Amino acid sequence: MFASRHVVRRVALRQTRRWAHTQPKLQSVTADDVAHFSKILPATSILSTLPPLSTAASELSPFNNDWMNKYHGNSTTVLRPRTTQEVSEIVKHCNERGIGIVPQGGNTGLVGGSVPIQDELVLSLGNMNKVRSFDPVSGILVADAGCILESLSEYLAPHRHIVPLDLGAKGSCQIGGNVSTNAGGLRLLRYGSLHGSVLGLEVVLPDGTILDQLTTLRKDNTGYDLKQLFIGAEGTLGIVTGVSILAAPAPQSTNNVVLALPKFDNVLPLFVEAKKQLSEILSAFEFFDREVYELAVKHGQGRALNEEDIEGAECFVLVETSGGKREHDEEKLNGLLESLMESETPLINTGVLSQSPSQFASLWAIREGLTEAVSKEGKAYKYDISVPLAKFKEVVDATRERLRSKGLLHADAVKHVVGYGHVGDGNLHLNVVAANYTPEIEAALEPFVYELVASYRGSISAEHGIGAMKTHALHYSKGDVSIEWMRRIKTLFDPRGIMNPGKVLE
Amino acid sequence: MFASRHVVRRVALRQTRRWAHTQPKLQSVTADDVAHFSKILPATSILSTLPPLSTAASELSPFNNDWMNKYHGNSTTVLRPRTTQEVSEIVKHCNERGIGIVPQGGNTGLVGGSVPIQDELVLSLGNMNKVRSFDPVSGILVADAGCILESLSEYLAPHRHIVPLDLGAKGSCQIGGNVSTNAGGLRLLRYGSLHGSVLGLEVVLPDGTILDQLTTLRKDNTGYDLKQLFIGAEGTLGIVTGVSILAAPAPQSTNNVVLALPKFDNVLPLFVEAKKQLSEILSAFEFFDREVYELAVKHGQGRALNEEDIEGAECFVLVETSGGKREHDEEKLNGLLESLMESETPLINTGVLSQSPSQFASLWAIREGLTEAVSKEGKAYKYDISVPLAKFKEVVDATRERLRSKGLLHADAVKHVVGYGHVGDGNLHLNVVAANYTPEIEAALEPFVYELVASYRGSISAEHGIGAMKTHALHYSKGDVSIEWMRRIKTLFDPRGIMNPGKVLE
Ligand SMILES: Cc1cc2nc3c(=O)[nH]c(=O)nc-3n(C[C@H](O)[C@H](O)[C@H](O)COP(=O)(O)OP(=O)(O)OC[C@H]3O[C@@H](n4cnc5c(N)ncnc54)[C@H](O)[C@@H]3O)c2cc1C
Ligand SMILES: Cc1cc2nc3c(=O)[nH]c(=O)nc-3n(C[C@H](O)[C@H](O)[C@H](O)COP(=O)(O)OP(=O)(O)OC[C@H]3O[C@@H](n4cnc5c(N)ncnc54)[C@H](O)[C@@H]3O)c2cc1C
Repeated sequence: MFASRHVVRRVALRQTRRWAHTQPKLQSVTADDVAHFSKILPATSILSTLPPLSTAASELSPFNNDWMNKYHGNSTTVLRPRTTQEVSEIVKHCNERGIGIVPQGGNTGLVGGSVPIQDELVLSLGNMNKVRSFDPVSGILVADAGCILESLSEYLAPHRHIVPLDLGAKGSCQIGGNVSTNAGGLRLLRYGSLHGSVLGLEVVLPDGTILDQLTTLRKDNTGYDLKQLFIGAEGTLGIVTGVSILAAPAPQSTNNVVLALPKFDNVLPLFVEAKKQLSEILSAFEFFDREVYELAVKHGQGRALNEEDIEGAECFVLVETSGGKREHDEEKLNGLLESLMESETPLINTGVLSQSPSQFASLWAIREGLTEAVSKEGKAYKYDISVPLAKFKEVVDATRERLRSKGLLHADAVKHVVGYGHVGDGNLHLNVVAANYTPEIEAALEPFVYELVASYRGSISAEHGIGAMKTHALHYSKGDVSIEWMRRIKTLFDPRGIMNPGKVLE
Repeated sequence: MFASRHVVRRVALRQTRRWAHTQPKLQSVTADDVAHFSKILPATSILSTLPPLSTAASELSPFNNDWMNKYHGNSTTVLRPRTTQEVSEIVKHCNERGIGIVPQGGNTGLVGGSVPIQDELVLSLGNMNKVRSFDPVSGILVADAGCILESLSEYLAPHRHIVPLDLGAKGSCQIGGNVSTNAGGLRLLRYGSLHGSVLGLEVVLPDGTILDQLTTLRKDNTGYDLKQLFIGAEGTLGIVTGVSILAAPAPQSTNNVVLALPKFDNVLPLFVEAKKQLSEILSAFEFFDREVYELAVKHGQGRALNEEDIEGAECFVLVETSGGKREHDEEKLNGLLESLMESETPLINTGVLSQSPSQFASLWAIREGLTEAVSKEGKAYKYDISVPLAKFKEVVDATRERLRSKGLLHADAVKHVVGYGHVGDGNLHLNVVAANYTPEIEAALEPFVYELVASYRGSISAEHGIGAMKTHALHYSKGDVSIEWMRRIKTLFDPRGIMNPGKVLE
């Protein structure tokens, strides 16, 4: 993340540009608007610091501040509709009045997209939290956008199905937020992206019209697939109120193993071998380098691996399998491990295989604890990027080299440059761990990292999105023509610019 | 399909409506245009009946007539560019001149989308047929749009990967055509839709601009996913010139079995059981009723099953597995079959399991021969629809009942009403086999079938698209708001209406 000083500068910059594009200027919510909303919604669905409600500002604080407590809005009014019809009437009014709206799900987004930049109205989906239908035969689930991801998992469990999506924020994030950010997460390698598994959406458009594309069909080739535009639009084109999604049959068995590799160059051949031998049961292939592993151990994240097992290891890979039959899965996984150990020039030094559910969890804990370990070690500059698998190490090394060449690689400046991520998805989390956020480090890193990513035709945001954080950097991943067409789409759907202003596009 | 008399009426209707929407009127290609194209393209890339080339009309015939020989265009000029740049220059000229363009891939489409309605220019992608890159580690393939599907399969085979898409037309259809029709086919159950597996596209927009979204990234959340709009747009929004797609690791083993069921009601519990026991290796679950099976036998499609095995069977299911290890797959499949046979109220009468590659092929041949058997039996009214799995039989029965109630169910009118299709995808092929195409039968079927589909919130086109054939019926599957927004998208991208005019939207 950036130093707060940095954020201030960036926000100022963004606002200047933003008003240049948004015409007419957006309006603040007034007491009259609140009176109007009171006709649409019950009192329990409205929070407003404005009269006559005069809610305490502290009650609005969870809606104005993001998960990282890094982005801060000044909304006076939060609405929590319970029905699509209510959403439609709210949006219609805001469109007529030119009031900016921030759609908010679980507010777990990591790019400042879910909170206002100024005093836009917050439309929170949390009260729309019903499962509308589930068909255990087809596996198709239809749910209100405000359903929390974990609740949906719990709902599906007795039906032996899972949501084709899982992420650390599952206890808070909502399916509508997941769709709106096109969330990736831990199951993408196996179940693919939401562009494939979301079958239908119900969306309230910026003029209040309800676009009903909430089909429960696996196949439907009747014209343009408009719903796709809202997957990953981060609330800038409309408000997702309902989601139809293809749930996957629950696996009967899961296993994992952490492999210690003598050198990074072995990661790719190992991935190829794992895909070949595990094929359809390979469900995760996560990479982390030695340096970030040591940080995890230092800060008590997950159980440390046996020193002997990992001697000389330059990096690690966590492999997970999920399949329909325990014996088969174990046989495949053991087969892979044996062939790896027995080959003439082994790709791995050792492997630590989980033997129980608790070991399974503790191996995952190492991987999942890396983010926290990094933040305990210092101030982290985080880059969530996609680059070709073969370039992971090059990116980490080039960044370290860059900092070294600027004289910034020492205990008082940058302490660590580490990499981890979803090798299977080409998604690298590049983390630069510094003693403090400083302008020098930032200047050394940006635009350097973005240019590096661009040179590989990579993505400056693999899964977290653009939000308010990276609007200025969009051009490193998208060409002028693409950005121009994004703008045209935005203008087509939202000519008044009321929908999540200042996000995604400047 | 419809009687030719019927087609004439429909085309006339469509044209009237079409010109009402398309402004200004489109221009015919002139000798001057051909002279201009000669500056862009080598002579070998141009076919034109106009001077100075004066190509024989017969040479253009394969481009003017569709696969079914049902739709007939009158194009004077066919261009076969070899590069994206050439495509761009052609399109730019046509846009300036207001000349309609029909993008054409393998011309295997089944809804008349790939041939001109009048004398639009045909832009054939066949000369753009190079693989641009393949990364065996990530499985990401980048290819020119004109690559034939089967060539791509052959290209990938030595790399132990497969295209995540397979269909009967593979020897002729092109990857760009597949993307443009969002083709479903035989692997959808296992590998999902192209909206998930297509990672990037290169598209020439109607003004000639090249939209380069040809990334080779599995994850990229940097703004709106514009490429999705072109997947299934049937060439009405732009010309796909390049495709980046995630290939799947080749399965090591495949098996199939045909199951005979005492009654249709067992199909759904059987599907649930198969999903549970076969889970990740279940790769096809195809249904066909007894009546269409008998037609297949009568017309010599595929090897007949043993009379004893299928005594009393009301319908059949073909189950295919594809997995990473032969023994495991066979054990799972045998386990399923045993549990099915041993249960107290068995879901199946018998199962015929393939024991060799040739038996594997001959079981598939029954399923794949159904279409041909139907057309050998009589004139078929074909409906490619999506309805909830539980409604398959209801739809077939209701259609038969409708025809009976109209006095049309006898040897001289409708001989058979049969159903088959991809149960796993909710895709039913409803076939009404008549002695002749007659106005009475047609009037009994339409809009009856479309209304029936609409009553289930189904799709009037599961996989074949809208093309020229179903523009008038789009509203049975898409609401007014959706159609209105499709129109706005069309107008945004193609204000002059040059791109595949008269297709998808009237
Ligand atoms: C601990 C943790 C782990 C995470 N792990 C992952 C991960 O593995 N992979 C990953 O991809 N992301 C991850 N994230 C970030 C991820 O984007 C979010 O967790 C999640 O997808 C957002 O859902 P939400 O309901 O919290 O949305 P919010 O944060 O409320 O909103 C996110 C964006 O979507 C918009 N939005 C929300 N709901 C709607 C709606 N109904 N209609 C229209 N727009 C809407 C908002 O305006 C905002 O722009 C993680 C976050 C945390 C805190
Ligand atoms: C025997 C047979 C079996 C089939 N089986 C299936 C099946 O199982 N599943 C299924 O979904 N379909 C099936 N189809 C129909 C299917 O739509 C096509 O086979 C295929 O996807 C079309 O590819 P094509 O290259 O032939 O495209 P064409 O027929 O040439 O064109 C189809 C449409 O796409 C447009 N188009 C083509 N190329 C481009 C391009 N590069 N850019 C922009 N627009 C373009 C055309 O204008 C037209 O509207 C089958 C067809 C046949 C003949």
